[in-house]
Formats: sequence, C-alpha cells, structure tokens
Amino acid sequence: MRDVVIIGIGETEFGELWDRSLREIGIEAGLKAIQDAGVRGEDVEKMYIGNMSAGKLIDQEHVAPLIADYAGLSHIPSTRIESGGASGGMALSEAYKTVASGMNDIVVVGGAEKMTDVAEEEAKKILSSTADQEWETVFGATFDSLYAMMARYHMDEYGTTREQLAEVAVKNHSNASKNPSAQFPRETSKDFVMGAPPVSDPLGMFDCAPLSDGGAALVLCPAERADEFEGEPIEIVSMGEGGDTMAVHEREDIGTLKATKRAAKMAYERAGITSQDIDFAEVHDNFTITEIMAIEDLGFFEKGEGGPATEEGKTRLNDEISVNTSGGLKAKGRPVGAVGISQAIEAVQQLREDAGDRQVEDPEYGLTHNMGGTGSSAVVHIFRRWS
Amino acid sequence: MRDVVIIGIGETEFGELWDRSLREIGIEAGLKAIQDAGVRGEDVEKMYIGNMSAGKLIDQEHVAPLIADYAGLSHIPSTRIESGGASGGMALSEAYKTVASGMNDIVVVGGAEKMTDVAEEEAKKILSSTADQEWETVFGATFDSLYAMMARYHMDEYGTTREQLAEVAVKNHSNASKNPSAQFPRETSKDFVMGAPPVSDPLGMFDCAPLSDGGAALVLCPAERADEFEGEPIEIVSMGEGGDTMAVHEREDIGTLKATKRAAKMAYERAGITSQDIDFAEVHDNFTITEIMAIEDLGFFEKGEGGPATEEGKTRLNDEISVNTSGGLKAKGRPVGAVGISQAIEAVQQLREDAGDRQVEDPEYGLTHNMGGTGSSAVVHIFRRWS
Repeated sequence: MRDVVIIGIGETEFGELWDRSLREIGIEAGLKAIQDAGVRGEDVEKMYIGNMSAGKLIDQEHVAPLIADYAGLSHIPSTRIESGGASGGMALSEAYKTVASGMNDIVVVGGAEKMTDVAEEEAKKILSSTADQEWETVFGATFDSLYAMMARYHMDEYGTTREQLAEVAVKNHSNASKNPSAQFPRETSKDFVMGAPPVSDPLGMFDCAPLSDGGAALVLCPAERADEFEGEPIEIVSMGEGGDTMAVHEREDIGTLKATKRAAKMAYERAGITSQDIDFAEVHDNFTITEIMAIEDLGFFEKGEGGPATEEGKTRLNDEISVNTSGGLKAKGRPVGAVGISQAIEAVQQLREDAGDRQVEDPEYGLTHNMGGTGSSAVVHIFRRWS
Repeated sequence: MRDVVIIGIGETEFGELWDRSLREIGIEAGLKAIQDAGVRGEDVEKMYIGNMSAGKLIDQEHVAPLIADYAGLSHIPSTRIESGGASGGMALSEAYKTVASGMNDIVVVGGAEKMTDVAEEEAKKILSSTADQEWETVFGATFDSLYAMMARYHMDEYGTTREQLAEVAVKNHSNASKNPSAQFPRETSKDFVMGAPPVSDPLGMFDCAPLSDGGAALVLCPAERADEFEGEPIEIVSMGEGGDTMAVHEREDIGTLKATKRAAKMAYERAGITSQDIDFAEVHDNFTITEIMAIEDLGFFEKGEGGPATEEGKTRLNDEISVNTSGGLKAKGRPVGAVGISQAIEAVQQLREDAGDRQVEDPEYGLTHNMGGTGSSAVVHIFRRWS
C-alpha cells in the first residue's frame, strides 16, 4: 500500500444556500479543491461523492456522475457513497484505498447535501431514516429522541449533567467564532444554551446541529507524487471503520458508541499510535451528547469523564486536546454528506498551520470522527504533516 | 495489488417478494454466499451493499449497516454504494479494490432492492430519478422515453429494425428458460414481443426489464488464501469504470454508450486482452436497445452491427459470443442494486461450469457490464477460472 496525501481542499459556505442547487454546491467545492492543489481537471482519474439522501431531499439519485458531469469531467467514473451522517468520511475511506492500492493517482473526493429545499420537519424525518425505520421511527422515535435517550442514560449512568452538555455547545460556538467558514460564527453562553427551547428532553435547540446546505472536497494523490502539485501535502496516516446495531434498543449499553470504539482501535493500530498522541480532533457532534460520548469512546478520556473534562475546559482550543476547533457540526454546520470531508479540511488547515485564530499550537497528529445514524456506522481518519 | 477471487455466491429468487423485507432479502443472499464459500461469519471483515434507492422505495437510508446488523455482523463496517442501475457493479469494484490493496481479506459484497412495495408508476418515477431531474425528467421525460429516443436514433442512424430489438428479448427469454433462478423462465416469440402493448415507441412492454425485488451476494478473498475455503475460486481479472453526461441531450451521439466504451477499454487494458477473447458476457439489457448498443460499445461487434448480429443469432448461447446467458435483466429480473452482483454470479456459475442447460462450452473469459441512469455511469468486470 502506498502512502496517501491530501494536496487540495475546498468548500462552499454552509447554510441556507437557496440560490444554489446540489450540483452547483458540489462543483464549487470541487473546483476550489482542484485549484488549491494546482491540479488540472484532466488529471483527475476518479471521483467519490458522499451524500446521505439526495433522492429524498431533491428527488435525484445517481448524484456522483451528475456532479462529475457538471464539473466538465463527465468521462470520469464517479461513485456515490452513502452511510447516513458518515457518508463523507466513508467516501474518504474509499478514495484513500483506491490511491493506496495503486489503482488511481489523482482522486477527488467530495461531499454535498442540499437540506433546505424541503420543510424542516421533512428534513428531520429524512435524517431519521438513517435510524432503523422498521423498529424505531415507525413507532414514532425521531433522530432527536433517540439521541435524547442516550443522553438521559449517560446522565443516569455516569452523572453527566445538563450543564456539561451545554458546555459542548458553548465551546464549539466559541471555536466557530474564529472560523470564517462557519455557519454560526458566534459565541453563546451556558445560560443561553440551557434556556433554549426544548427539542427532546434533555436536549434543547442548542444541543442539536443545524440543517445545512453545503459541499466540501479534497484532492488526494500518492505521497510520491505530491511534489508535482502546489497544495501543501498532508498525509492520511490511517483509516478505521466500525459498525454497531442499527436500533439503539439492541445495544447492551446505549451510552457507548461501539462502532466509534472499533473504528478508533483500527485507526490507532494501523497508525501505530494511541489516543494520547492526538493533538486535535474533529468529532461528530450532531448532538452535544454525541461529542461527550465520542471523546470517551475515541479514548481521549475515561468512560464517564467526557462531561467533567468538557466542563473543566480540557477540550478547549490548546488545552489537553483541542476538540472541534472548526466549530463542529454544531456551529460550523451540518450539510450531512459533506461533514466527513469538512472535518478533513479542518485537519488539513490545522496541520498546514493555516487555521488563523483557532490554530492548534504545533500539532503533530489530527483525528476526524464521522458517524452515521445513531452510531451504527463510524469512520476515523488520522492525519499528520507529510515529510 | 493482489489477485482477487470470488469464493462464494448466493442470491434470492427475483420477483414480487411481498413476504420479505429488504433486510431479509439482503441476509438471505449473503448467508447463501457465505455458506457457498465455507466462510464463517466471524471471518468477514467488511461488507459493501449496492442499492439504488431504498430511501425512496422503503423509506430507509443507511441500509448497509442495517443488513450487516441483521446478518448478525453488526460489528463489521458496511458501506452502501449507489450508482443508479450500476450500484451492484460499482459495489463490486470497491470490494475488489479493498481486497486487491491488502486492506481486507474476506469481504462480502451484496446488492439488494425492494421495488414492489410502492406502486408501479412510483417505482418507474424512482428509476427516472437516476436520469437528470433538472434537465430531463422535470420536463416529463421518463426513463422509458429516454431509452426510446436512443432506440429511434439507432434505428435511423444504423438501420436497426424493430424486429432486431425483439430478437434480444426472444434470446434472453430463451436463456432464462434454462435458468431456474430467473424471474421469467419462459420462452417468448418475436411476434409476441412485437405485439406487446407499447411503452414508449418503439419500445413495447417486452422491450423493458421488469421491476423486481431481490438480492445477490459474493464473497471475495485474495487468491493466495482461496485454498482455505470451500467455494471454487473464480478470479476477477480486471475492472474498468467510465462516465458520461447525465442528460442524454448533452451527448454528441445518443446511439453510443460512451461510459461503457471507457469502462471496457480500461478493463481490457488492465486484463491484457481484447473483446475478441471474451467467451460470454452479461450486459445491461434494461431495454432491448441497450443490449444492442452494449454489444457494439463493448467491442463485440462493429457500430451498427449489433442489431444484425442479434438477428443472425450470433449472440445466442454458444454461438459467436454468448450474451446474457442468465436471461439478463429482461428475464432473469431486475432488482436494481443487485443486478451487477447477479451478473457476476452468472459469470462464476459459467466459469465453474455449473450452469446446467445454459452452460457455455469451455469458457475462458467472461465479462459483466452494469450501467447506471441512461448510461452516465458504467462498470465492466472480467473473470476467468483461477489456476
């Protein structure tokens, strides 16, 4: 297997992009990534597109060749990867493998989602269709309420508090305030988060990531060819993937993200490092409780210590481990299929030391954690500067 | 890159499977494949699932971890690949790459679709959503009518006749009559095909593949480990993929499947053979016209000669090249996401010389051709017996 580097990054703004269609969003991100890399369109051999649900959100399946076509690259094979919220991260894994295997050299991997062309309630229903329809949502469980159950369990089992959940949102909004790409680049306060309208007890509106339109893209190539292009190369050191039951009620312990644990173990082993070597991490904070579980299950803190660690500021920028320096899904935004790619962009910006006011000091290893459904799929990537 | 073999195959019946849900279909096919291979569930490291549109057809996204979970393998990472009608073939490509790269050893790749839980007109609309919604189907073009335009063009440009189209259906039904797995294992006649109710002129009902429920699965491993398992190994010699414009009207020549030509070229070059070395082929006959274009664009016949070759019987079993010995999408059935996998199963059965009355004599190389949308994505695989 060859070493693989990211040589280009590009993304659209995240938000309510009513003036742009999915294909335009995809192309904008892709062209920025190609320009950043200094690659020409004709160099690109293969594309992957992470997308959760264009079929339901914009009535269009088969979006991968669509985006390649409208980028002027209709001859290129382009494959859509779908794994709910982990679609972007899983797409990155396939792109990584095709370059590592020697099958392809220059590969573009993008993610895009257009979520605001349907009513908010409809978009939330579609998110819920990544949980188990036959055993969960058909009985009235929503995506929010399934995560609320995990939060309640975590509070009962480990003493996690409502305040600690709120601190996740406060931190991530603080980081987003330093990120010009963020959908919500504004600080907030614990009182404001706790006073927000309830969504599904104990989670309120500020415990939930928003619905966003947006796209993100990367250009990958084998490390041995990185010198040919302009973008400063960042290595994808390793990749790990894991699974878990679709339905939350089938899990022995609903306060643990088993797929995340499995993906992290695989990624650390392949990289030959441990969780303690990671300097910053973008984790899948679709809800505040998810970040708390993730920082435990990724091995940064002992089980049950995620809440206290957050409250004590250990996950703030340049504290023990910098978590969601971009603002995370919560405040950078959540165009679902683009999330895993957007996380990798933050990793590249940090490792290039190009992250401005939110720069992590002297980072060596960065990690991204992307999750689908209520955690039934998860993917972890580890990055470092190529040298 | 390592050599990769298929060591297990399994599929459900294809048809209106109203007693089974998508997850049950997926598991049935997967378990049969695992049993055929003599692999234990705990040996499986990774799954891929080809599926076109479970989101719209059964209101369930994120089907790959769902199927892994209900197979008792919830810990395994499982990725859904979607490329319209080429979803199964594209899933096989990703599975092939992960084994070839050395990333995984034992991989299950399946395809499944549940198409009959919605009304027929709704299912056809969903098929149309793999064409270009913004520029084609929103103006009333249907999947059928887009292919009918290609047929009309091919007739005008090359003199292809209505009778020649009908002969595709007659041949494929004849092959299906020798295939116990076929949805329609019955002979038909040219007069019957030509007298069938019109769908979109010049295509009638018997020029169109049916709507089917069904699943199919393969077990892959590196060739160096094939001896450890029971299933007779068949090598995946090479893989090729190609793209084309989403919208038919953007093509210079709508009688040529450019993505198919590109995919075939890549597959032949990687295998170090030409189209003349192929003994049998499963091609994407979603409509009769598609088979005629495919056998030209795969290089078996000169452009414009596909119709006459079919009429002269050159594509019949054990004639010049045996095309769609399984009965094809037309008569074996079309559970969309499973099609590319089902084609590979036919290749394995033929190369194992296990195809009963439809056995190709002494086959060396087999080819499968799977296509998405109106041909904007295509994937070709080449197989031979492992030795």
